[in-house]
This record gives sequence, structure tokens and C-alpha cells, in this order.
Amino acid sequence: MTTAMRLSWKDVRDQIHEAILTGRYMPGDRLPRDADIAEDLNCARSTVQRAMQDLSDSGLVERRRKGGTRVRPDPVTRATLDIPVTRREVEQKGSRYGYQMIRREIKTAPSRVLGVFELAEPQKMLQVEALHLSDGRPYILEDRWICLRTVPEILDVDLAHQSANEWLVLNKPYSRCDLRFYAESADDQTADLLGCGTESALLVIERTTWVEEAPITTVKAITAPGYQLLTRS
Amino acid sequence: MTTAMRLSWKDVRDQIHEAILTGRYMPGDRLPRDADIAEDLNCARSTVQRAMQDLSDSGLVERRRKGGTRVRPDPVTRATLDIPVTRREVEQKGSRYGYQMIRREIKTAPSRVLGVFELAEPQKMLQVEALHLSDGRPYILEDRWICLRTVPEILDVDLAHQSANEWLVLNKPYSRCDLRFYAESADDQTADLLGCGTESALLVIERTTWVEEAPITTVKAITAPGYQLLTRS
Repeated sequence: MTTAMRLSWKDVRDQIHEAILTGRYMPGDRLPRDADIAEDLNCARSTVQRAMQDLSDSGLVERRRKGGTRVRPDPVTRATLDIPVTRREVEQKGSRYGYQMIRREIKTAPSRVLGVFELAEPQKMLQVEALHLSDGRPYILEDRWICLRTVPEILDVDLAHQSANEWLVLNKPYSRCDLRFYAESADDQTADLLGCGTESALLVIERTTWVEEAPITTVKAITAPGYQLLTRS
Repeated sequence: MTTAMRLSWKDVRDQIHEAILTGRYMPGDRLPRDADIAEDLNCARSTVQRAMQDLSDSGLVERRRKGGTRVRPDPVTRATLDIPVTRREVEQKGSRYGYQMIRREIKTAPSRVLGVFELAEPQKMLQVEALHLSDGRPYILEDRWICLRTVPEILDVDLAHQSANEWLVLNKPYSRCDLRFYAESADDQTADLLGCGTESALLVIERTTWVEEAPITTVKAITAPGYQLLTRS
């Protein structure tokens, strides 16, 4: 006597994904109802629902009310980016991490910074400029602004020896994050600090975080020439 | 008589997230067992499991065997990037999309292309160079290689009028995707096609896709000066 194997939600997901990959269902096509798929595959309807949730999270299908599903008519490339603290990033590449604080100053935030935080009123913040190194060579130059109203305790942290990057990630979890990627030519000062030629093309990663509606920090991370951000999915 | 409201898995997730945000649980801390949380909150254990799955997907906690969970000791910034087809991207910004094919040629793929596809043997592929425009101005210059063994039908597509970007996204879903972001200085030819100065700093987005183990396409998308990629989470 053989026992029929119960399909897991991952089996169901893979079967539906396969049908999309082979073109049995094309972008915009309606999929059968959850209940019909469940009957077809002899599994629980909740198993189909879990599978559909996963396919929807991956951006492959769109769920409608009442259990209807269709293949996304305008497919997107969906990628998950994990950006660790810079020390970990350097160490994961097998290199030795170094950190140098360049400047630390309390001053009124410029309009660019108020803008990314979506703040209307000027306020004083802590600006920290620092250099992250990999095997002794400049890796990322960061220009960071920290909101003192949200994180007053940052003033007690010895930022000459511990990077604000690491302290904040460990001590001030965020509930919202904006990321922005663009390229920028090195100006004289940046070229000097990163040890590269003026006008070098540099990848910039800007990150701004909030906890509930309160701004925490915004950092402009200017990466050294040759830096690449890679993600697989 | 009042009826006690059953907590949804999202309620449970938000409560645990709140406890992490307020520092009640710090990076590396162990959370109570699922069963204990379920009893505490008077909900089903499966509700707690669903909540934990979501927190784990967001990179906030780590699940261990036997239902143990801890707050991730090395928190990462996790962001989801959705890259639509370029026509949609332009239209979503309220601009008019345009497309120009520059070159279309069957030739042996150079080692850079074989490398990103992880192929050992040289093979002929279709190279397509094309310009995407936004309101008549250069937006993205793409240098694309398409694997003819996987997508022979691309030879029947009129790529002078339909972008390979769009045709492939709609007709050849992928199961694996590598994305790479970096900055590059415009060389003479690129500057000419994008209508910008030589040595301008440009954001490059490289995307390579496979279906099962078969390479589909790799595209080097060189964006015009000022291009920014933004993601919120």
C-alpha cells in the first residue's frame, strides 16, 4: 500500500511558478481559483493560499479579492538588498576593517538634510564625517546627520572610536527607511579623502531612517572607485 | 457581553516589532518561545508562527530550530527593489517614452558576458544596443546580450520597434536574477549617445537572468546623468 504524499505549500508554489515559467500562464492571465487548485492537487485550500502569498510577495502574481489571482501583467524585477553595517561588509569580504572619524559637529541641518527628513523647521543636529577602511584603504566616506531630538544619547557615545553606523544599527532600530542610489563625480575634498582622482565616478548610497514618524539619521555613503553592490535572487 | 477580539498575525507582528523598536529586546536577545507568546497574547500558536515568519522575512529576527527566535545580532538594512520595464518606469514619472534600436548583431559573446552567465564555452549570442528616451531625451543606454540557445524565438521579434527589454519580460520569465550596481565614467561613445559630457559619472545597473540553469539575457543599463534609484521600506 502506498501513502499519497501531502503537498507542502512550497511544492504548490513551485508547480504554479513552473506553469508561469513555461508560459502556460502568461502575464495578465487569470489563474484558477484557490479552491479549484486545492481540489486539483488534493491539498488544503490554506496550502494554496500560503503558496499564492509567497508568489505575490515575489511580485509574480497579483491577488484580488475573493481568492482570484492573475499573473502580474507588468512583471517587475524584484530584488531584496541586504546592507549590513560597513564593518561586517568589509569583514565578510575577508578584509580588515578600519574606521577614522574626520569631523563631529553640532550645527543647524542644511535644507538638503531637512528635505530628506521631510522636516519644515530648521533644527540643530549632530553631523559626523567618517571614513571606513578596508585593509587600510579608503572604502566608504560617510557624511551623516543624526537627529538629536530623537537620539539625544548619541552625544554620550565616543564616536572617535565607535562608528555611528554601528552604534545606531544596534541601538536605534528603525521602522522606516528610504534608500537612494546614484553616481557622483568626486570633488577635490572627496577625492583627497578617498585617495582617488578628482572627477572619478563614485557610487553613492543615501540612507534615511525614522522610528515611527521621528527622524533618526540620514547618511550619504560615498563609495570608493570600483565599489559594486551585488544582489542575487 | 463583550467578545474578546482575536489578534491577527499582523497584530502579533506589530507588538513584537514594537518591543524591538523600544529596546525591550535588543540585537542578539532571545525572544520567548512561540507557545509562550501565544499563551500570553491568547492567540493560536500558528498566529505567532506567521508573525515570526514575517519578522524573519524582514530581517529583524532569526528563527532557530524548535521554535526558538532571537533578534538578529547583526541587523541589516533590508530593502526590496522593484525594477519595472523601462517604458513603465518612464511613464510612471509622467513622461513620454521613446525607444531607438542602435545595433543588432549575432556574434560570439565576449568573455565578460560568458563570465556573468557562468559559461565556460564560447557561443554566439544576439547583441542588441538600444536607447530608451524620456520626453525625447536619452534616459538609459542598454547593451544587451541574449542567449540564442535559450531564446531562439527572439530572432523573429522586430527589435527595431519593440524593445528586447519589454519582449523578454513578457515572454521569458526568469527563475534567477543577478543585479549589480556601480558607477562608471562616460567614455566618448557613451557620452555621445547619452548626450552628456565625457567623464560624466553614470549609474550602471547590470542585470543577468536565467530560467532554471539556462542563461536568458544580460543587460548593462547605463543611466543618463542625474538618474536616481529610490526605494522605501
